[in-house]
Formats: sequence, C-alpha cells, structure tokens
Amino acid sequence: MNVTVRGHTRHFRTVAFDADKNSVLLIEQRLLPHEFKIVATPDFRATARAITDMIVRGAGAIGATAAYGLAQGARAFRGSNLEKFRRHVQTVYQTLKDARPTAVDPVNAMHEVLAAMAPGETVAEQQALALAAAEQFAADDVSHCRDIGRHGAKLIRSGMNVLTHCNAGWLAFVDIGSATAPMYAAQSQGRKFHVFCDETRPRSQGATLTAWELAQQKISHQIIADNAAGHLMQRGKIDLVIVGSDRTLGRTGEVANKIGTFTKAVLAHRHRIPFYVAIPLSTIDWNMKSGFDIPIEERSASEVLGAWGVTNRGRREYLRVANPTSGAFNPGFDVTPAELITGIITPAGIFKPKDLWKNRGKLGFGR
Amino acid sequence: MNVTVRGHTRHFRTVAFDADKNSVLLIEQRLLPHEFKIVATPDFRATARAITDMIVRGAGAIGATAAYGLAQGARAFRGSNLEKFRRHVQTVYQTLKDARPTAVDPVNAMHEVLAAMAPGETVAEQQALALAAAEQFAADDVSHCRDIGRHGAKLIRSGMNVLTHCNAGWLAFVDIGSATAPMYAAQSQGRKFHVFCDETRPRSQGATLTAWELAQQKISHQIIADNAAGHLMQRGKIDLVIVGSDRTLGRTGEVANKIGTFTKAVLAHRHRIPFYVAIPLSTIDWNMKSGFDIPIEERSASEVLGAWGVTNRGRREYLRVANPTSGAFNPGFDVTPAELITGIITPAGIFKPKDLWKNRGKLGFGR
Repeated sequence: MNVTVRGHTRHFRTVAFDADKNSVLLIEQRLLPHEFKIVATPDFRATARAITDMIVRGAGAIGATAAYGLAQGARAFRGSNLEKFRRHVQTVYQTLKDARPTAVDPVNAMHEVLAAMAPGETVAEQQALALAAAEQFAADDVSHCRDIGRHGAKLIRSGMNVLTHCNAGWLAFVDIGSATAPMYAAQSQGRKFHVFCDETRPRSQGATLTAWELAQQKISHQIIADNAAGHLMQRGKIDLVIVGSDRTLGRTGEVANKIGTFTKAVLAHRHRIPFYVAIPLSTIDWNMKSGFDIPIEERSASEVLGAWGVTNRGRREYLRVANPTSGAFNPGFDVTPAELITGIITPAGIFKPKDLWKNRGKLGFGR
Repeated sequence: MNVTVRGHTRHFRTVAFDADKNSVLLIEQRLLPHEFKIVATPDFRATARAITDMIVRGAGAIGATAAYGLAQGARAFRGSNLEKFRRHVQTVYQTLKDARPTAVDPVNAMHEVLAAMAPGETVAEQQALALAAAEQFAADDVSHCRDIGRHGAKLIRSGMNVLTHCNAGWLAFVDIGSATAPMYAAQSQGRKFHVFCDETRPRSQGATLTAWELAQQKISHQIIADNAAGHLMQRGKIDLVIVGSDRTLGRTGEVANKIGTFTKAVLAHRHRIPFYVAIPLSTIDWNMKSGFDIPIEERSASEVLGAWGVTNRGRREYLRVANPTSGAFNPGFDVTPAELITGIITPAGIFKPKDLWKNRGKLGFGR
C-alpha cells in the first residue's frame, strides 16, 4: 500500500526481499504509528530475531518473512556439497521455526519453499528455486488478499459506517490485508465511507496500526474506545462490521480472533448489523471439532496494567496506568460462534460459516 | 473506608469537614492510585475549584463537597447583618454551582442546606444550621450507601465472580459507594468472592480507582481489558454484574452510565448472567420519558488517543498511544434499556427496572 513520508508517497510491501544484498526488508512495526522505518535483516538469524521481536507480526506477514528468511539462509551457503547444504538449510529452517513457536504460518510457508527446492540438482539450482518459491509465496499472499477485497467490496456502499477490530490490515500481510481489503477495494471503486477503528486494548493495534494504515490510504476514520461500539450500534451509527481471524474452524464455522471480537459479534447480532470475517485460506483449521478446544493464549498482565506510547518529548515509553497493587487477567483471543457471523469473506468468495465444510474443496482442504 | 498508608490502616471518608479550621477535607483523586493524599480547601472558592478540577468527582461526593462548601462559605462571614449575609451566601451558592455546571447533585445538596438555614434568626444561628445540614447530608449519603450494601449483599455468595465497570465506589460518594456497597457488605459478612474490574477506557477508572479501592479493602480482584468480559462470560467465569448509574429513568427503568455499561448488559443478557445497577435515590430522574432524550456528553478525543499514568521514574505523564494523524469519537455515557437489567439496587430495596414508577412513593418521588 502507499505510505507518505515527508510529503512523498511511495508503495511499500510489509515484507520484501533485496536479492542483490540477500536481505529481507521489513516495516519496523514496533515504531508505528510514531515512526516509519524499513529494516533490512542481513542474514537468516537476524530475520528470525525480527519475527521473535515482533518487528514483523501478522499471520501472512510472518509467513512471507519466514519464506524469504529460508531463501536468504539457503542463498548464503558457499560451496557445492549438497549434503552440507541440506544440513545448513535444516538449521535455517529450525531457527526460523523457533522464532515464534506457536505460529503455524512460518512453518507452512517454509514447507512450500522446501518442496519447491527439492527438484534442484545443484546447490545453485536449489538456491534459485528457494528464492523463486519465496517470491511466489509473497505474490500469492498479495493476490489472495486482493481476491478477499474483490469479494468483500460488494458489501460496502457509499455512505456506510464500517466497524473493524484490531489490525487485520496490510501490515499483517504482505500487502492489502484481510479485514481491510474490502475497504481498500471499495475505495478504489470510488466509494466514500467511514471506518470506526476499535482501539483494541490492551495492545491497541486498532488505534496504532489500523488507524495509521487508514490514514495513509486516506480513508475517513475515527478511533473509538472498545466500550463505545455498543452505543454507536444502538444509535444506528454502524452498518457493517468486518474483522480478521487467527483461526477459523472449517468444521463448525467458529472464529478465533483478537480478544473483544466476540463482544462485537454479540452486539452486532442484537442490532441486526451484518458481521463479516475476512480470512486467507491458510487460517482455516479443518481438523479441530470445537471452538472450546482452541487454546487461548494468556498474555502478560503488564499489557492491561499500562500502555505504550510516546511522551510529548517524543520518547517511546511504557506507562503504568492501573493501581500498582492490583493484578490483571489477560486472555489474548476469544472465540465467536458461527450463529453470530453473517459471512466469511475468503479469496474464493463469501460463505456462510456453516457452509465452509461443504465447500472445503474450493477452500483448499487437504492441500 | 479503610486506607493503608505506610503500614498504618485508617478510616477515611472521601469528603469530610474540619469545623475548627473551617476547611473541607478531600481525597486528591487525581493522584490515585499512585499517591494517597488529603487536600484541605481553606475557603469556598478553593472548594469550588476542587470540584472544577476534579480533585473530587462522583455524584454523591461532589454533592457533599458543595454542601460543606456552602456551610464553609456561610461560616466565613463576619458580622451580624442578615441582608449582607444573605447576599454573601448567594455568592457562595453561585460559585459552587458554577464549579460543575451540568451536575445536579451539588445544586440539590445546597438546596437542602439553604432550606435548613432558613429558620435561623441570626447570622450565627444560620451558620450553625448550615454546618449541621451539611453534616446531615454527608451522613445521609453514607447511610444510603450502607442500605444499598445491605440489600445488594444478598446477591453475592461465596465463590462467586463479580464483574463491575468504571468506579461507582466509595470514592464517588462520601463512603462505601453504590456498585461496590454490596461487595463491602458481603465481605463484612465473611463471604469470599472475586471481582473482575473492567479497565473502563478511555479514562480507566476501573483500573485506577476501583482496583485501588478493592486492594485497600483486601477484596480479591483482577483488572481486565474491556474487551475480555465477553470471553469470561462465555467460559462461565462471571456470575453477577453490578454497576452504578449516572441517571436512571423512573418512568422507563433505563439506565445511563459510563460508556461500555450497555455492552456488558448485552453480554450478560446473552449469557443469562444477572445484571444489577446500584443507585442512590438522587440519581432517579422522574421526568424524562425516553433514554434517547438523555444527553450523551461527547468528551475530548485526547482521552481515547492516549493514556495517563506514571513512568518508571514515578512521574505522572500523558502518553500519546494512537496514530498521530487520526481523530477519535468519544461518547462518555451510554443507555441500557430496562429489558437487560435484572434489578435496580436502591437504599429502599431491589426493584425490577419497570417497577420503579409504581414504587415511586418509596423511592422519594416528589421529595
């Protein structure tokens, strides 16, 4: 998407690759929205650290980063001994896999790269195939997001107010995003609408990342406290909700997403407001049989007890907000049942959540 | 309630009066939860400023502060000319009334004091009557909160998890509080339970004031992000919700309270969790015919765009959290319809919201 830095507007992907320098180029997301900076990781260990340290986050984005990281590591190998190369690539794979042990996208992405490398008969051939596969993975991520946008854009009419939660935007993918894709597509078709971004405490990804994205793309928007969405719906100020998903159960249509998503779905249901979830196919889990089986990560209490931001002297700081002798409980995700979801926007079209299973052929089941 | 400062536990009221020094004693609420300090306002103008600057906040607390401020101003008059005294008292009244122009509690409280002064035949008599009336107002506030606690305590059984939103605690009254009163009463009866405090963005009164109160009173509690309550309810972790109210409509049973209250009521209703509102009689509005007529204050965007807290060097600061080129929409209150409310806990007992009107005699209508 486009970013304007000191008056100049340029297109950036969240994750890209500099083949000449063999380095991965990442938007340093921890500095956003206060500073825009591209980081180049010079080797696969630095790339793994960037994943661990959350310079890059979001399912699609870390998948592409791991794919590029694997190609980067493979390309750094000097020599022609295939067995030594294989062992080196195994080290690269394990290092990148360990960067975020619970995430499934880096592993899936690297398996695609490894499969593409296999036919190569020399080290040089395998290195070239690795890079081509990583580039293909990133290109696929972009085109899947574009397809989500194409299908989802039909839901957005001029004059609408759209609510979104957290950041399922282009910063979470290589480009375009999932929940934001229909907005960017509708905008490109000339429609004018307004977006309310839930702040999304405790990590405030809505107030920081989504708001920054929408501002860069010049889409009319306002941040609201997570507490305000119910009031806005009651007063007829929200026409459509679109969120992303960390895991969608193909068998039941249940959606795990950032904490607070379930609450917005309950509110939308009460007010008969369409509630859509936009997802790439990679986040569909075809095995799990109940949303209650999805592990809900319990995160650090410090996220709830304070906030990160910048002081008026421009320094980035953590501020303790809460009573210092109180603790916090901080579940990172919640699960929204299928009955509250109007539709799932996928690259292959929009489906009722209960219809995912019977459309599993179109939706990449078993691929 | 009790406050422990440097290992010593003492009882404090939120608002008190030092008759010898003719000064109002207030807990400096803007420093909480990071510092506990009592401020003495030496004259009625300083008392009015303390209301304006929100050293003291909360319906009952600012009512008592204005009552004491009026007595303080009256007692500062030197001389015996009743007409000059009357004009002086009028100035005091107006100054305190203007301190928070939209609040109704200071005005009602001062009318009680003025009515009590009227029979006095000399300046000295009226001054004494003013102080007695202010003390009576504060004592009534305490006894009303105690009555709310007595009725509401029956709802809390040992082992329960109770959710509350914002701060309707003793800091909002002279003592004990409204939503917290049943908790303090149940605790005094030996029951053990756990309280989840909604952070209550954007001003975080749950994380700061309610959590501080509960910690001082040694009630087991945790702060949660406003986004987390739905998940906890879905997983059976909340048994009861008790909140306060800024205005309750006697004719319809609708409740206006801090933004986010309506959302919690919708969630509780879906999960069949009892949802109670605890109120003093002074917050019942017997005239208004629809919750849609309640003016919803739109507050500063800066509250949503950042947070107040303390740095690790102990300095109190405002931090910008959100994208600097985005704006915010910040409604301060929302309205919960009667159908979502299990009961209204009042000093006169617990009533179904729809039954307030037919019980208006008991509930102080026309008083």
